[in-house]
Amino acid sequence: MHTPHGDVPTPVFMPVGTAATVKAMSNESLEALDARIILANTYHLYLRPGHERIEKLGGLHGFMSWNGAILTDSGGYQVFSHRELRTINEEGVQFRSHIDGSRNFFTPEKVIDIQKALGSDIAMAFDDCTPYPTGYADAEASMELSMRWAAKCRDQWRRYESGGRALFGIIQGSTYPDLRRRSAEAIEGLEFPGTAIGGLSVGEPKDLMYEIVESTLPHVNWDKPRYLMGVGTPEDLVRCISMGVDMFDCVLPTRNARNGCLFTSQGRILIKNAAYAEDQNPPDPQCSCSTCRRYSRAYLRHLFMAGEHLSAVYNTIHNLTFYLDMMRKIRESIGLDFSGKWLEFVKNRET
Amino acid sequence: MHTPHGDVPTPVFMPVGTAATVKAMSNESLEALDARIILANTYHLYLRPGHERIEKLGGLHGFMSWNGAILTDSGGYQVFSHRELRTINEEGVQFRSHIDGSRNFFTPEKVIDIQKALGSDIAMAFDDCTPYPTGYADAEASMELSMRWAAKCRDQWRRYESGGRALFGIIQGSTYPDLRRRSAEAIEGLEFPGTAIGGLSVGEPKDLMYEIVESTLPHVNWDKPRYLMGVGTPEDLVRCISMGVDMFDCVLPTRNARNGCLFTSQGRILIKNAAYAEDQNPPDPQCSCSTCRRYSRAYLRHLFMAGEHLSAVYNTIHNLTFYLDMMRKIRESIGLDFSGKWLEFVKNRET
Repeated sequence: MHTPHGDVPTPVFMPVGTAATVKAMSNESLEALDARIILANTYHLYLRPGHERIEKLGGLHGFMSWNGAILTDSGGYQVFSHRELRTINEEGVQFRSHIDGSRNFFTPEKVIDIQKALGSDIAMAFDDCTPYPTGYADAEASMELSMRWAAKCRDQWRRYESGGRALFGIIQGSTYPDLRRRSAEAIEGLEFPGTAIGGLSVGEPKDLMYEIVESTLPHVNWDKPRYLMGVGTPEDLVRCISMGVDMFDCVLPTRNARNGCLFTSQGRILIKNAAYAEDQNPPDPQCSCSTCRRYSRAYLRHLFMAGEHLSAVYNTIHNLTFYLDMMRKIRESIGLDFSGKWLEFVKNRET
Repeated sequence: MHTPHGDVPTPVFMPVGTAATVKAMSNESLEALDARIILANTYHLYLRPGHERIEKLGGLHGFMSWNGAILTDSGGYQVFSHRELRTINEEGVQFRSHIDGSRNFFTPEKVIDIQKALGSDIAMAFDDCTPYPTGYADAEASMELSMRWAAKCRDQWRRYESGGRALFGIIQGSTYPDLRRRSAEAIEGLEFPGTAIGGLSVGEPKDLMYEIVESTLPHVNWDKPRYLMGVGTPEDLVRCISMGVDMFDCVLPTRNARNGCLFTSQGRILIKNAAYAEDQNPPDPQCSCSTCRRYSRAYLRHLFMAGEHLSAVYNTIHNLTFYLDMMRKIRESIGLDFSGKWLEFVKNRET
């Protein structure tokens, strides 16, 4: 993918930087990992410090001093997460701030305006995200609303100069393949330059998620990036890449790091376990991150038990290294880059 | 100063790494600042993760992967801080752990054993630290007890191979110049390779602290490093260096960083102030630290208000840079190093 802030080889995992900061991970550390794109959050930044303030301070890139690409999610998922605080109608969603309880109203147009102010390289359409399980009729109505909003988002987007930035559409439809198909067709009809699958990883069984991804992708235009939102585990990434997904984001590596759960080539380890109290090995002997090169499991356990700041910092460096290294290896193994070989690879695989 | 882990030019400020980590400051960042010596805490490390465990894991240097010098304070001050949890007698101090309430007993001998296990380059004698104010009779009795303990510490220390490591004595005597003089003479009589002034910065007025430092130093042997424990502000450092102090430690730069208080060439700033919400300047335009080179006050304010991990990280890098740069400038301005010019400088100044 080409963005105004550099090229992004796919498949790619995007570290989550909700509040214009990837939690406990400095920009310098992200750069050392060659992270090309991070995700930020429209809902959170709108509430604090405010998109107009960020625009004044040079947009998100200037504000947080990040020169790589940034994707902003649209806030649909966050409004969904705080379900008890919201009311929805054809025009948009009224919700209360989780910070101060203030009333706010998001429309598709406003969400585009906010993302334009933030200046993200990739913006996302505003959608309604259904929980799992949702009955068919509700899922259908919600999906249809999201599709009407997607059209409004696209129209609002076209009122601005693009500046090389892109707006992606989002497919909804809960766990119903025919709704997903109809949603995919609607999104493709709107000719977004990239397509996301939303509304998954919201509590449904894994196999059902895989089924929906697999049955939805054939209805997506394969000449554009395909983004599976909010997914997932290392296993999810490998499996969904083999189905043809190009882009992922998930709080798992960063949140788990703060909770002392480390991803390693041998599986996950919970660093607080007493078994590591005198373990002089690095978290993952096969990892070359700055944490694994220097610190033992015993020391990282101590930092975690003592509630030290650096516990989150060192663990996050490791987990993001694990994710980004895995993606790098996958890209290398499928001989991709910008040559289109990836498309061939997947198409050959599927037939 | 020459230590088994490198030379330390004086005067020096030692960042405080209580639990074998300078809070929110990675070893890599400390090295980038050319920090040569840090302080760790006998009391805290004895309780968690335990000195025997640290010894097994390669001593403090191996455990925390720090190749510079380490000074360990003796725990006297921490036992003093948790006054309600302790009882004291001639043999030592019984105290309850602030972590789990367990009963523990520190003797001068045991505190030396612990510091030997930790493997610090500079160990401190175990002392009794009086609060401010303390009546003369109590201060005298406490000082005399500390002096008897100092002798026991020295004797215990001599039972080990030194390995080039040093044990420093600590002068007590509260705010009474004659007790300070008697304590200094007692400590000098024990021929420690370095002398500390303890029991200050415990709530007494600033002028009284300066008075006591100034009246105590003439009774200290000037051929050895002089260490003023737990002090202080940038102003304190400049003033006490001019009196002849060589070494300092204080939680101020690191703790203030976590509370959003930044030291700058223009004075302190509280980053949470609304005045900084759209301030695109770095914290200190005269500072060249990685925080000031990259992040604005507006962004640092946002990180602080959002309770983000990196707030502490970036603020700590700045505040420690401020302290260590100041010390570097002072060393340069007085043309010191290991040539003895510093002693000449101060002696000339005093006459």
